[in-house]
Amino acid sequence: MYPIAPNYDLVKPFGIKDERLYIGNISVNDLTERYDTPTFYVSGDRFEDNIKEYEESFRQEGYNGNMFTIAYAIKAHTNLALLKFAKNRGTGFDVSYKNELYAALNTGISPDKIFFNGNAKKRAALIEAIEQGVVINIDNLMELDEIIDIQKRLGKKARISIRVNPEIDVDTDPAIATAVKNSKFGLNFNLAEKAYKLAISNNMDVKGIHMHLGSQITNMSVFKEGTTKFVEFAKHLEEELGLEFELLNFGGGLGISYAKNRSEEEKIVKNLKEINKNEDIHSNFYCPISKRDYVKNIVDSVSILNHDVKIVIEPGRSLIGDACILVGRVMNIKEGSPDIVSLDMGANLVLENIIMKNYNNIIIANKARNKSDNHVKFVGNLCYAGDFVSPFGWEMPDLKKGDLVSLMDAGAYHWFFACHGNSVEFPATVLVYKDKEYLIRKRERYDDVFANDVDLDL
Amino acid sequence: MYPIAPNYDLVKPFGIKDERLYIGNISVNDLTERYDTPTFYVSGDRFEDNIKEYEESFRQEGYNGNMFTIAYAIKAHTNLALLKFAKNRGTGFDVSYKNELYAALNTGISPDKIFFNGNAKKRAALIEAIEQGVVINIDNLMELDEIIDIQKRLGKKARISIRVNPEIDVDTDPAIATAVKNSKFGLNFNLAEKAYKLAISNNMDVKGIHMHLGSQITNMSVFKEGTTKFVEFAKHLEEELGLEFELLNFGGGLGISYAKNRSEEEKIVKNLKEINKNEDIHSNFYCPISKRDYVKNIVDSVSILNHDVKIVIEPGRSLIGDACILVGRVMNIKEGSPDIVSLDMGANLVLENIIMKNYNNIIIANKARNKSDNHVKFVGNLCYAGDFVSPFGWEMPDLKKGDLVSLMDAGAYHWFFACHGNSVEFPATVLVYKDKEYLIRKRERYDDVFANDVDLDL
Repeated sequence: MYPIAPNYDLVKPFGIKDERLYIGNISVNDLTERYDTPTFYVSGDRFEDNIKEYEESFRQEGYNGNMFTIAYAIKAHTNLALLKFAKNRGTGFDVSYKNELYAALNTGISPDKIFFNGNAKKRAALIEAIEQGVVINIDNLMELDEIIDIQKRLGKKARISIRVNPEIDVDTDPAIATAVKNSKFGLNFNLAEKAYKLAISNNMDVKGIHMHLGSQITNMSVFKEGTTKFVEFAKHLEEELGLEFELLNFGGGLGISYAKNRSEEEKIVKNLKEINKNEDIHSNFYCPISKRDYVKNIVDSVSILNHDVKIVIEPGRSLIGDACILVGRVMNIKEGSPDIVSLDMGANLVLENIIMKNYNNIIIANKARNKSDNHVKFVGNLCYAGDFVSPFGWEMPDLKKGDLVSLMDAGAYHWFFACHGNSVEFPATVLVYKDKEYLIRKRERYDDVFANDVDLDL
Repeated sequence: MYPIAPNYDLVKPFGIKDERLYIGNISVNDLTERYDTPTFYVSGDRFEDNIKEYEESFRQEGYNGNMFTIAYAIKAHTNLALLKFAKNRGTGFDVSYKNELYAALNTGISPDKIFFNGNAKKRAALIEAIEQGVVINIDNLMELDEIIDIQKRLGKKARISIRVNPEIDVDTDPAIATAVKNSKFGLNFNLAEKAYKLAISNNMDVKGIHMHLGSQITNMSVFKEGTTKFVEFAKHLEEELGLEFELLNFGGGLGISYAKNRSEEEKIVKNLKEINKNEDIHSNFYCPISKRDYVKNIVDSVSILNHDVKIVIEPGRSLIGDACILVGRVMNIKEGSPDIVSLDMGANLVLENIIMKNYNNIIIANKARNKSDNHVKFVGNLCYAGDFVSPFGWEMPDLKKGDLVSLMDAGAYHWFFACHGNSVEFPATVLVYKDKEYLIRKRERYDDVFANDVDLDL
């Protein structure tokens, strides 16, 4: 059985007052009256604070704004308004698909603050990136060949880094460990050296070097090992090939705390092992690493280079993960099985939790009180048995129809995996910033769900 | 390591000719030139044959068209053209969400051939269903109360069945076993009897009784146990409450063969256990039960009632599952790790396989030849490490960029779970019928992916 949220630390500006969940001075009750359920609420204040915390960390290490880029990994939560919001606060963008590239360019950001990742980039997107001057993180040698070909045709140099794989043992779920041996991503050091030689001999605009270790990493030694191997290799390349990198791109991966502390984390892990009938659940729900520590490790690591270098990081989850909640309503409580509570939203909005064996804390937004002996599981409104919003047996206050169920820390990858199962329309998203509200994604209607269907009578 | 598709039986009209995959007389190569990749291709011929096979099975048991309804469970693959295609061939519809209800009504079908399921139906949808005369399969007592309330307000009787849960041990993946004890769906026999009494005393139009055992069931004894318990309970209710059901709705659940035989199935199960690090994989990839056997079991079971009764079934997977393939292209083969082949489609289109621990056979549509010693895994174009289109180590012919990778039996639940991860646009869907092609779902464009985003500059 699992405890309710008062055992969990709310991050500013989320708070509980008179047993109600608030975002700043606006209660989720009030928001729900205006925006219905289910709805994602993004706290702009929290998103901004997370960006600022990275920025301050760099400044405290003596880096001015020209010497670092916090490139928001937009896949974590893509929305046109959120991209502009981030850009207006100085971020760059990490993009990984042509539509992400176009959305990033659409913000009017300087293209050299966009970093284009991905193991299978489409030619059209590569052409666009080269024409615009986006930095391409080349993933493999076939892509390098294609870029050489495009360069020739366009008569324009490609700005590039090469994604290297330091091949370390990343302590996170395999679904999000990207720098392990045999990852689909990046080149091992031998092949990367070959790639740099090819890039130089083909007259590319070599900006830097790139790696990415994985996601939801909460173990500092993983970052230490990764950055050390990476920077040593960068130094080796500089010496070997006689070049000087303008930038080192360390990727992202810093985790967030889904649990308050180690003991809460243990409970989560125990529950997930039982639920998944799988012993292979990683203990990465509590993150003791501050953004300051994370940045300091990177800054320290580059000191072995004998020149100034711009540092790029690509955080996603640690910017938006704890800035967003997902709120639905209780639809019914099952007679005969009062531990089964059906909501008006389903697993289609929390597939991330199934796929990446992750977890969300839950607060009843209109009765955020201490636990009772009432143990419930939250199920969705979809027509399949695995449709759990949360399979944990939560200790909850007495629930009734209409109660507001808020999934905390729902900012990262929930939207990524959202699906239309049972032809359910996608929910609305509202940005709450300085106690004002902005609808940033309209709730879909029936016509949107079937917009591309051809209504043929055959 | 896993064998290639010649070890797998193609169903009509899929076939291989000159090492190329065909749908009827049209090669997938030719289709791809016209519709690009990734694209779903639905064989209308196969879909039609599957419907006819159920129909013929009923007719062979002496049932005429008025005495049975094959209600297509549209969640398996929802598309407006496919719904009309099915309706024009005499099916009814099983719907489970308001948008599915509206899509079904949109076909112009007689509302009494629509069966409305779901554990958390919205009030607006219940009102629409009652007004139109759709048959509501009542899931729980709170829903019953709501319908009683709506009836009073509308002054119109609701047509209803009650979903009962026979509480048997269903031999399939827990994610799709719906009639187990503590399922979120349906009422146990005690509560169901109470519900029928309430329905009668509240003057509802009681049409029948409903159950649904689960999905991808391949074990006849599960169906036998389920139908026996169900029909015996129906008979008990008739005697106890002095009513005569017009219809018995047995739900769906008949599996399809993702594997050719038991020995292929064993290999799949072994691989899935390793990949998922989970011993809890069910052996339900080979289905020895014919539609004829399935129908006969149901028809036999109702003989204990001493009156004629209409039989409703709600098949989804067994109608559309093997009628559809998903075709993508090889983008690159990883140097240094030539066993990793990247495609231009990702896990976002095969999440069903991750969530329900399912599997698709793979055929290289432009070189469908015998296996070689070449063992490959297919990965997608998304930016996360778990992005496998197939994590199996397939024995494949030598592959190169542009080769066409066809996922077989991709008709059921692949579209259900399709997501926009990395802002990837949804693919096109093409219906191939009697050697003609019909685009039935347009490929999304950039604007579609962000259609509901509000482009706010804050």
